[in-house]
Amino acid sequence: MLILGIDPGSRITGYGLIESDGRHSRHLASGCIRLPEGTLAERLGRIFREVSEIVATHVPDMLVVEQVFVARNPASALKLGQARGAAICAGVIAGLPVYEYAPREVKLAVVGTGAADKTQVQHMIRLLLGMDTRPQADAADALAIALCHAHTGIHLPHLSGRRA
Amino acid sequence: MLILGIDPGSRITGYGLIESDGRHSRHLASGCIRLPEGTLAERLGRIFREVSEIVATHVPDMLVVEQVFVARNPASALKLGQARGAAICAGVIAGLPVYEYAPREVKLAVVGTGAADKTQVQHMIRLLLGMDTRPQADAADALAIALCHAHTGIHLPHLSGRRA
Repeated sequence: MLILGIDPGSRITGYGLIESDGRHSRHLASGCIRLPEGTLAERLGRIFREVSEIVATHVPDMLVVEQVFVARNPASALKLGQARGAAICAGVIAGLPVYEYAPREVKLAVVGTGAADKTQVQHMIRLLLGMDTRPQADAADALAIALCHAHTGIHLPHLSGRRA
Repeated sequence: MLILGIDPGSRITGYGLIESDGRHSRHLASGCIRLPEGTLAERLGRIFREVSEIVATHVPDMLVVEQVFVARNPASALKLGQARGAAICAGVIAGLPVYEYAPREVKLAVVGTGAADKTQVQHMIRLLLGMDTRPQADAADALAIALCHAHTGIHLPHLSGRRA
């Protein structure tokens, strides 16, 4: 099972692709899409095109994103929503099912506690996926989202992974 | 010049296509995309696909949306942002330039005052575009956005139409 995790943001969108049978997972690819200075249209187009390209190259079985509850304020929620819309569209148009998990569930799945900081997530992702180096923070978040989905139903059957 | 106005929303996305030389404009097509009950992914996919289809059918020269300043709250801003991201992506991927105008500018361009209600907008859109019947509210908003762009530079050179 190939799982693509995406962590959309209005400046940087992280992505992480893992292969997993639910018990064992390995890192296939990860990184981040840094959005250019430029118009909103250019930036959203970049997210859509890059995610589409990752999907076309690796042919994952699903796309997984983090659920968003409340952003800090309406302006940042709008920006995050636009980036999220572009990323999710790229998955849907490619025919992938899209799943989402609460941030707390992602941390619980990866670090074992719902309140972990970024460094802990990066550390555990490196260990769990047997990576040589610590992944960049946004890529680590995306890999954590993918790993959370991989663990659902086997290690963490109580998680509420649901179709986005 | 064919101008496609889009009024994205998390439940209904209005669209309106006009032909204009800047002085005279006529209605070509308009309507609204009602989003199905269903997952977020299905709804965003619907917006992207329907806007893509409208673009493929009519081949407009640009896509125009309303600028969003502040939504009522972060949750609705996120939903609006996602819908907006899907609609804008469909235009960008088709190679269209995307423009945006402030809501006040759209009303100013169509009704002559920045504080018009929906009924006034529907009424003026019908008159200005020579339509037989009053357009549905969301379609009227989309047509108003398109008409605002048509008028910029000729009737209303002070408007700040800018690349989104």
